[in-house]
Amino acid sequence: MRTRNKPWAAQRLADYPQYAVGAPEEKKGKWADVFGNDHPLHIEVGTGKGRFVAGMAKANPHINYVGVELSESVIVVALDRLIEEELPNVKLLNINAENLTDVFEKGEVERVYLNFSDPWPKNRHEKRRLTYKKFLDLYKTVLPENGEIHFKTDNQGLFEYSLQSFSAYGMLLTFVSLDLHKSDYEGNIMTEYEEKFSKKGQRIYRCEVRYQ
Amino acid sequence: MRTRNKPWAAQRLADYPQYAVGAPEEKKGKWADVFGNDHPLHIEVGTGKGRFVAGMAKANPHINYVGVELSESVIVVALDRLIEEELPNVKLLNINAENLTDVFEKGEVERVYLNFSDPWPKNRHEKRRLTYKKFLDLYKTVLPENGEIHFKTDNQGLFEYSLQSFSAYGMLLTFVSLDLHKSDYEGNIMTEYEEKFSKKGQRIYRCEVRYQ
Repeated sequence: MRTRNKPWAAQRLADYPQYAVGAPEEKKGKWADVFGNDHPLHIEVGTGKGRFVAGMAKANPHINYVGVELSESVIVVALDRLIEEELPNVKLLNINAENLTDVFEKGEVERVYLNFSDPWPKNRHEKRRLTYKKFLDLYKTVLPENGEIHFKTDNQGLFEYSLQSFSAYGMLLTFVSLDLHKSDYEGNIMTEYEEKFSKKGQRIYRCEVRYQ
Repeated sequence: MRTRNKPWAAQRLADYPQYAVGAPEEKKGKWADVFGNDHPLHIEVGTGKGRFVAGMAKANPHINYVGVELSESVIVVALDRLIEEELPNVKLLNINAENLTDVFEKGEVERVYLNFSDPWPKNRHEKRRLTYKKFLDLYKTVLPENGEIHFKTDNQGLFEYSLQSFSAYGMLLTFVSLDLHKSDYEGNIMTEYEEKFSKKGQRIYRCEVRYQ
């Protein structure tokens, strides 16, 4: 997702701590306090402009959502959405996914969502893909036993790679759709990107995998 | 594959025992004798009109192939192909896949191919799909440790089902292509069905999975 650099973004995030959580390392093990309840916590890694987490939060008021996004210039767009929609059960976290384990305790996250992650198509960039084994290690560290990843993408190569990466990691594939928008799957919340590319006729691939 | 019933088919198969192997239960553990060499043995379950096994046999003269097909009326078409092409390293077996273990010893088969298997799309017919766990048990019984299944189909639902079935069985996904004919995969031998449907723009899905 290409977005113009926004030098004012950091200040704007700091101005809305109720949505853009500051000092995230202090929240490790304390996310129930951040939300003021002990509802299950689902995170989206690479939350972009936040339409998915906001839509999920609206549809599932008894689940807490944290959208993790590295880019300040992108996450401020998600922030604007939360300011407007006033959703109590979604927060944003402007961190690198590599630091997830500094921010969440083992088992504190019930589910990880990956949506339209950067495909990094060159072989030499494999380690940057969010379904590379290093990242599967990280998610495992914050999820409970048998925790789940729900993943969707329009990128065929990334989906093929990820199915193999999940399998090599010993994960169980519990759901797969090779054309989500033509399937009978219900309750899909589209991302901005998903709406744009599926309108152009791109297939959306989706799977659910479980650690075991 | 719909084919008109051919009452003369059984006799024709019996007339060519060098291609259509008779008394198959007596061959169990003795396939090296049948071929007259100890080359690796690959089988195709549901071989249809035999274009795949014949093409593979031509391309790989040091591998032996057995095409297994339940329908007499279909396998005689494969027989005609073998009579014409005089390939020494391919045989046909007119048996039900459920009886594989009566015909092959443990470890006697090095690889199983499944190509464009009947999708049996209704849930109540799940047990008839050639990637249902009962069949995965059978293939495992004739394959060595870490034996492989190579599977392709144009049927999206069957491919989705099969990926999940392989995973639930604890198999490792070592290769997956969600659009084989647009990939850089080399050496693909097309079946009759594959050529017909890919010309109509159908995607071909392919994967390789390994027992572990």
